[in-house]
Amino acid sequence: MSAFTAIDPKTEAPFGPEFAEATPAAVSAAAATAASAFERWRHVAARDRAAALRAAADGLDAREGDIVAIVDREAALGAARITGELARTIGQLRAFADLLDAGSYVEATIDRAIPSATPARPELRRMLHPLGPVAVFTPSNFPLAYGVAGGDTASALAAGCSVVVKGHASQPGTSALCAEILRDALSRTTGDPDVLQLLQGRTPETARAVVGAAPIKAVAFTGSVPAGRALFDVASSRPEPIPFYGELGSLNPLFIGPSAVEERAGEIVTGLTASISTGAGQFCTKPGLVFVPEGEAGRAFVAELGKALDATPLGVMLNGNIRHLLANKLQASTLVAGITCATRREWPRDAGYYVPACLVVTDAATFRASNELREEHFGPVAIAVMCDPSEMKDLAATLGGHLTGAIHAGSRDTAWAGDLADRLAEHVGRLIWNGYPTGVTVVPSMQHGGPYPSSTSSLHSAVGTTAIRRFLRPIAYQNWPDALLPQELRAANPLGIERIIDGRRTTASLDAAEQ
Amino acid sequence: MSAFTAIDPKTEAPFGPEFAEATPAAVSAAAATAASAFERWRHVAARDRAAALRAAADGLDAREGDIVAIVDREAALGAARITGELARTIGQLRAFADLLDAGSYVEATIDRAIPSATPARPELRRMLHPLGPVAVFTPSNFPLAYGVAGGDTASALAAGCSVVVKGHASQPGTSALCAEILRDALSRTTGDPDVLQLLQGRTPETARAVVGAAPIKAVAFTGSVPAGRALFDVASSRPEPIPFYGELGSLNPLFIGPSAVEERAGEIVTGLTASISTGAGQFCTKPGLVFVPEGEAGRAFVAELGKALDATPLGVMLNGNIRHLLANKLQASTLVAGITCATRREWPRDAGYYVPACLVVTDAATFRASNELREEHFGPVAIAVMCDPSEMKDLAATLGGHLTGAIHAGSRDTAWAGDLADRLAEHVGRLIWNGYPTGVTVVPSMQHGGPYPSSTSSLHSAVGTTAIRRFLRPIAYQNWPDALLPQELRAANPLGIERIIDGRRTTASLDAAEQ
Repeated sequence: MSAFTAIDPKTEAPFGPEFAEATPAAVSAAAATAASAFERWRHVAARDRAAALRAAADGLDAREGDIVAIVDREAALGAARITGELARTIGQLRAFADLLDAGSYVEATIDRAIPSATPARPELRRMLHPLGPVAVFTPSNFPLAYGVAGGDTASALAAGCSVVVKGHASQPGTSALCAEILRDALSRTTGDPDVLQLLQGRTPETARAVVGAAPIKAVAFTGSVPAGRALFDVASSRPEPIPFYGELGSLNPLFIGPSAVEERAGEIVTGLTASISTGAGQFCTKPGLVFVPEGEAGRAFVAELGKALDATPLGVMLNGNIRHLLANKLQASTLVAGITCATRREWPRDAGYYVPACLVVTDAATFRASNELREEHFGPVAIAVMCDPSEMKDLAATLGGHLTGAIHAGSRDTAWAGDLADRLAEHVGRLIWNGYPTGVTVVPSMQHGGPYPSSTSSLHSAVGTTAIRRFLRPIAYQNWPDALLPQELRAANPLGIERIIDGRRTTASLDAAEQ
Repeated sequence: MSAFTAIDPKTEAPFGPEFAEATPAAVSAAAATAASAFERWRHVAARDRAAALRAAADGLDAREGDIVAIVDREAALGAARITGELARTIGQLRAFADLLDAGSYVEATIDRAIPSATPARPELRRMLHPLGPVAVFTPSNFPLAYGVAGGDTASALAAGCSVVVKGHASQPGTSALCAEILRDALSRTTGDPDVLQLLQGRTPETARAVVGAAPIKAVAFTGSVPAGRALFDVASSRPEPIPFYGELGSLNPLFIGPSAVEERAGEIVTGLTASISTGAGQFCTKPGLVFVPEGEAGRAFVAELGKALDATPLGVMLNGNIRHLLANKLQASTLVAGITCATRREWPRDAGYYVPACLVVTDAATFRASNELREEHFGPVAIAVMCDPSEMKDLAATLGGHLTGAIHAGSRDTAWAGDLADRLAEHVGRLIWNGYPTGVTVVPSMQHGGPYPSSTSSLHSAVGTTAIRRFLRPIAYQNWPDALLPQELRAANPLGIERIIDGRRTTASLDAAEQ
């Protein structure tokens, strides 16, 4: 049986216990256990699921010291970032608990019978139900917020789905600790730890086996375009195809207007430098593509941005593979004719996955002709495209799908920005005005997911409470006896939730609701 | 260029004009035209799209005579059914128009900025936007309600998507007439008929070309499992995969309890006979699988149901292919050992696609072992499975996904029914109590779509106003200037729609909304 250990990104030294690669038998067993657990979990009342999520949040909170230590050792993200990410992770669990308590997430809808209609109209009551066992693939770049106890797991558990997590091989200790905390919270609240299963593994075969396991009814994946597409293909070609919610790569194009570059170049240099280099640029929302007005002000801006990036500390990549891929991509893109670099640092040759920030500079014609420059460079790297501002709209039209698009507009840029935004909206899930894409606020109005390839399902969000919708499907009950209905649909509205009765939103009982 | 004509199902005689099979170039041109039209249509205000849908409804209404004539000639469904289906089709268009007028379908959500938060929280406003050009495949069994002007087209146009319809080859005249009425309505209201394109064709190559056309961003399909799966695979394996909303085959299992069969066998025989044989059983919701308690009462019930079906008029199938497929399926399933027939009529050998209703009878063991009996027999055919009522729950667990499941319970069947329903719910999109699955009410609480293979996306409904959600994706606007926002998200709420501001539902302006 193949086994692996964590590797310290700062030293490249393996450390900690050996973790066994999940065998095909282990994958099948986990899926079967999740299927049994689902049969219990789907009957647990929403408010009891909420209590389990809160217990998980409390459990994470109580183990902050252990969590920060293992994440920092495995991912080298630094205590400040990890503490912030843990707070977000805890906050997400509690937000879903609040959503369950409010109860209206089931979208309960009732249309009363109209026996006199032609044809006679039966009574119909509809609500959302959980899909079944969900497979969650954690990424290396968010060990907590998209890890074992992260947003995908939280939203699936909240929906009433059991979860099989395939933990990222770079952080096996983090995965194991978070799974222990979650299973303990489930044990203490509902007595049912098996609602969450953890599989460790680093091979594509293990990943494919998880997606192909018959009991799995949906997949949430965060990772690269090639890995995500390969698993999307497995999910889509199963005898029973299942939804695959992949949050894949994104270049997060950022456009600078002609007035903006003249009026506040310094401010934008500062903001962009932080957004490109923080966390070694290992964010799905890192601005990887910056469109800069050609001409003197633009050239000066790019030079300043290069200098500022050269002054940032070396970043440390999450693992050797990511560093290797970035090196290859940079080599390929800087070989393109018409490319220069506005940054000057060489890559260090010492141990550790350190890399310097890098700003590649090109022009519109070169960008239009290049495939390499349209690929995500995962890490502290951005590509600046010098172009006529009036051409930016057409360049936006050549982009694929991205999570975000940002526009920096100055005092005379409004018409230009409106025109550009109209085009850009077709290519992104979030539009940002005079800001930077990193730092994803977890609120109901957040949208994290744009057209393909940034997401394999642009209808859904991977961040915010609407993420629960990925794991729910409607069931309608026709003329169904009240006593056999779920609580959410009973005439008396015993949970007191918001429902839509005959088109009107109300918390009233069926008898009291307006006719 | 290959061409075809309509064929009268009652005589097998071709009639009417020749229709040219859409060439690959014609498919590309239609998709490109739809892409241009989308750029205009997505900017048309919701209330103006509503006016266009109402004009289409009025146009259908005004041409009732012509429509009934061509549908009856091409599909032989009879004036009463066609008039009813036309009323439903008109009603659907008006229901989506009302939804657009109310405006809250965009799910506008606003979370105000909290500059003092750590990290500072930006302002976010989110709403749903149309996906892009949609391909609609019409089925032969609902020439109007799922035809060119049917629910898929209505929901896509309502969403702000342009539409390319691939009309079913059995009803080219119906498709052409409905397209003419829709394009005329679009012309008269928005001046833009090209928002709807019609392609005629009968080859799988044409269908695949439509799904594969690059500008198409989603597909709505109603048809058989093999045809739907083949096109799902095309949609999923595109360079840019797109959502495929397939409403495929369903057996609509119906379970009869031990008390029910004793207390009201006659009533159930009457109801089932109508549900199996009406429209020659050519409904996706026809009850194709009936679980009957074994024993004397059950045997008598099956004999009576067979007699009643034998007394129904011959049904006429929509086309020769459907008749041929049904013949093959019946031959395959009645070859299974342990099968008998409770009906006695031979298939007629005269011209016309006539078939008699048929009731196949088997036992639990034979059903468990057979694949043939689990396939949809599209037409006036049902399979009765005689079994111990206590075994029905386990039999339900062996079923795939179906659109509906029905339970007929008598006075002492409540515990049995509750237990069975809990299992059955995992396999269907709609549960029906003491009723029949045919006759799909078009209300917000309807769910038309169950687990695969009854639907390729059980998260969505193909019937009812929630069907619009299939063609919408969220876009979030971060710190976006009010003047550049869509009307639905502007501070003043100029459209007066319902929005959620900081978690509270309100029609107030942003300034007036509760903090």
